[in-house]
Amino acid sequence: MTRAQLFDNIKKKSSYLCVGLDTDLSKIPKHLLANDDPVFEFNKQIIDATHEYAVAYKPNIAFYEALGPAGWVSLQRTLDYIPSDIFTIADAKRGDIGNTSALYAKAFFEKMDFDSITVAPYMGEDSVKPFLLPNKWVILLAHTSNPGSSDFQLMESVVSGRKLYEEVIVKSKLWASPDQLMYVVGATQAEKIESIRTLAPDHFFLVPGIGAQGGDLQMVSKYGMNKQCGLLVNAARSIIYASDGVDFAKDAAAEAKKVKDEMEVCLSKM
Amino acid sequence: MTRAQLFDNIKKKSSYLCVGLDTDLSKIPKHLLANDDPVFEFNKQIIDATHEYAVAYKPNIAFYEALGPAGWVSLQRTLDYIPSDIFTIADAKRGDIGNTSALYAKAFFEKMDFDSITVAPYMGEDSVKPFLLPNKWVILLAHTSNPGSSDFQLMESVVSGRKLYEEVIVKSKLWASPDQLMYVVGATQAEKIESIRTLAPDHFFLVPGIGAQGGDLQMVSKYGMNKQCGLLVNAARSIIYASDGVDFAKDAAAEAKKVKDEMEVCLSKM
Repeated sequence: MTRAQLFDNIKKKSSYLCVGLDTDLSKIPKHLLANDDPVFEFNKQIIDATHEYAVAYKPNIAFYEALGPAGWVSLQRTLDYIPSDIFTIADAKRGDIGNTSALYAKAFFEKMDFDSITVAPYMGEDSVKPFLLPNKWVILLAHTSNPGSSDFQLMESVVSGRKLYEEVIVKSKLWASPDQLMYVVGATQAEKIESIRTLAPDHFFLVPGIGAQGGDLQMVSKYGMNKQCGLLVNAARSIIYASDGVDFAKDAAAEAKKVKDEMEVCLSKM
Repeated sequence: MTRAQLFDNIKKKSSYLCVGLDTDLSKIPKHLLANDDPVFEFNKQIIDATHEYAVAYKPNIAFYEALGPAGWVSLQRTLDYIPSDIFTIADAKRGDIGNTSALYAKAFFEKMDFDSITVAPYMGEDSVKPFLLPNKWVILLAHTSNPGSSDFQLMESVVSGRKLYEEVIVKSKLWASPDQLMYVVGATQAEKIESIRTLAPDHFFLVPGIGAQGGDLQMVSKYGMNKQCGLLVNAARSIIYASDGVDFAKDAAAEAKKVKDEMEVCLSKM
């Protein structure tokens, strides 16, 4: 999917919502556990209920990997079920030496057909570039939303005066254009999004942290939007686990619609 | 496996060799491809041929993940086949927010029973700690062996004057003892191993880069060893792809023995 197509979808749906498919057998409604593939069955119903409000789906790969080989089958079935006009993100946070990153790229872009993958920047350029395949996207960790993000990401360079997450953005911009590269920018750091937007005016940001992690959608949108929206805001637990009864999908849809309605207002101010 | 047990194995075998099981269908001998599970068949023969010279095996997970669900089955079979007195490393370079890292820990330490996993430090403390389970090890990326390692790992802090990889070591030492924490230190940076050893005198280092990547075993051993050896030196391609005929395992054994003989000399100088 191109950047223009993504922006078209955002305008069409008045939404920049990414739904996180962080599907956990211990949290899904109990009545689904009798199913042959409860993870896929849950995801299928969530996708059916939320796809009109979402422009992206993001399975966090850990949830599937923790289930062994069967988890990868559920992941593939889920990916196949997502409507083709919706952007798909393998939230895998991979990254290794060049020839090994190429194999991770193969796993997520050839064996499976995700549009994008999240990548950790610690190992530098040759660990990131193998993911930059035609029509595929790298979403590079910049400033994450977890408490540990302050351990190293805020370290300030004696040479450039920039913090590590800023260095990651400045250097990686040389590796790929905004048509293939996005950044993970945590919503819990809303006050920083404005300065990050200055560093990367044209790139999309994938923003986790709305909902369960407590980020504020209006703040993020006010400081983070660019002329092509430039934001994919992820919500997972607050939508997919909105309730755990037989009506869970209806409740997930209502939550997704609520976020989408708020996004529609934010988009109107763009 | 405890640190004392690992050191005992090193003394018993006069070796600190880790064999990298980076098994690639396009590189293994062609006659194995007729097998139901060629990846496992290759690994099995490599393990049979090299286990007397090796104290650790390290499958790089990308090679298995690239094969889809079947790859995870081959990985599990391989892990089950490794003799129980040999240390096992899931070279996965994972790391995510706390609850998600806990799921990766589940994948590699419960679903499978690896002794250790490599972890990327970018997301900080809460991304690393979930892997610190009883009797399990974290092997944290510090200074890697690839060209891109200089992009961010060498960034110098304006506050501490330390480089990022040094910050990673200094901070992470507070999270776990040398009985649960090792560091990845690239052999291609042999001149730096001495200074890294000063920062972490008691920790084991996992050293990739011998063989195909061109690191020098004697230099690494001279500057990197501590009183409990403190080194696991990985060789993958140079051993497992020593030849591609029907005798590949015999040739792999000869290569492994060659490295082990060199290690025996280094250990005698310890």
